[in-house]
Amino acid sequence: MPSLVLSKQKLSWNPSSYSIKNMSIIDALNWRYATKRMNGNSIPPAQLETILTAIELAPSSLGLQPYSVIVVQNKALLKRIQTVANMQPQIPEASALLVFAAWETITEERIETYIKRIAEVRHVAEDSLKQLKEMIEALLKNSAEENFAWSAKQTYLALGVGLVAAAEEKIDSTPMEGFDHVKLDEVLQLPAKGLKSTVFLALGYRDAANDYLVRQKKVRREKERLFVTLP
Amino acid sequence: MPSLVLSKQKLSWNPSSYSIKNMSIIDALNWRYATKRMNGNSIPPAQLETILTAIELAPSSLGLQPYSVIVVQNKALLKRIQTVANMQPQIPEASALLVFAAWETITEERIETYIKRIAEVRHVAEDSLKQLKEMIEALLKNSAEENFAWSAKQTYLALGVGLVAAAEEKIDSTPMEGFDHVKLDEVLQLPAKGLKSTVFLALGYRDAANDYLVRQKKVRREKERLFVTLP
Repeated sequence: MPSLVLSKQKLSWNPSSYSIKNMSIIDALNWRYATKRMNGNSIPPAQLETILTAIELAPSSLGLQPYSVIVVQNKALLKRIQTVANMQPQIPEASALLVFAAWETITEERIETYIKRIAEVRHVAEDSLKQLKEMIEALLKNSAEENFAWSAKQTYLALGVGLVAAAEEKIDSTPMEGFDHVKLDEVLQLPAKGLKSTVFLALGYRDAANDYLVRQKKVRREKERLFVTLP
Repeated sequence: MPSLVLSKQKLSWNPSSYSIKNMSIIDALNWRYATKRMNGNSIPPAQLETILTAIELAPSSLGLQPYSVIVVQNKALLKRIQTVANMQPQIPEASALLVFAAWETITEERIETYIKRIAEVRHVAEDSLKQLKEMIEALLKNSAEENFAWSAKQTYLALGVGLVAAAEEKIDSTPMEGFDHVKLDEVLQLPAKGLKSTVFLALGYRDAANDYLVRQKKVRREKERLFVTLP
């Protein structure tokens, strides 16, 4: 069972020698950690594709997927992003940075596009989706701020799915909030796309020799505090 | 490869005949759907434990895990919850309902508890964590509303991890927002615990004969809309 060997011998692991998709989710989540230093190596495109496909398949409220994910691999751009993200070293050391960005507002047009998409995929008439459309419009009759907060939460769900996918592919990842959202949005020209950044996922390979955190035990709240099991 | 057969023959799948942990995350995410009707069967305790352990291992910003997860299996209580959740049928039909609930406020005491926990798990002196403590306090010097919104986002990350775990265990699940948060909090006495509900995850087994959604194609935004790959 390679997965058990892996989780006990964190530091000697060699990504290229590992046959993927053999670890259970628990082994994978134990193996992963918030990687603070990466070694600059590139992720095989097929594995990046798997992570993106998992994110694509993540559910969202009303099925709306009110966000986009910006995929940055260009080293010069990663270095520029680093300057608005507290100079965190893993950004340019990553193979790819996924920037989750939620819809700034939920427009009529965006709901319309979603309805058209359902009609197309399920081969039904748009008319038959009128009730659904009205329900979505009614549920999202909130202020732009409230809707953005809702959309932002959906990006965290997708982030959770993406980071499990990365861990199961033996790709290191770091979820990151520590950046200047306004400046980052400017760098990536997100306002023109109607998007506002919410959170990053840096993807790459741990630099075990230089990352202090790789040797630290994972800290989690006691199960009896985290879970309340009602009788 | 049982996983391929599975994703093509959704309706003929029998949970008890399936050897778990053989599906890739992509197969599992294709297999899962927002289950609208469940059949009332119970999840084996070991599989519920796996899902809860995945949620426990979900990362969170600053590692704080500013939430709890209420595990409801009592049928009478599920029926009561249903009454504040638009009478959605899958609630009492589920084997377990996970209610994600974020900290209402981030108190000094909660940060203190976290620091003590790090010291305990990593066998370091609390004094050595003074800088970390001050950093966390500085980062969370926001209004209670802002901190709750931040904590709520963390629950969605944990939800994402939990629902992947469920899918890989071949447990059906439904993430749900459609409930009256204030009334639900009263039913579960969350205010006394300093918690506010954010989202549900119903866990159980699909009632394929009565669930219209099981036969519908999954709808997702076109990859070229969802992902922006920068040169």
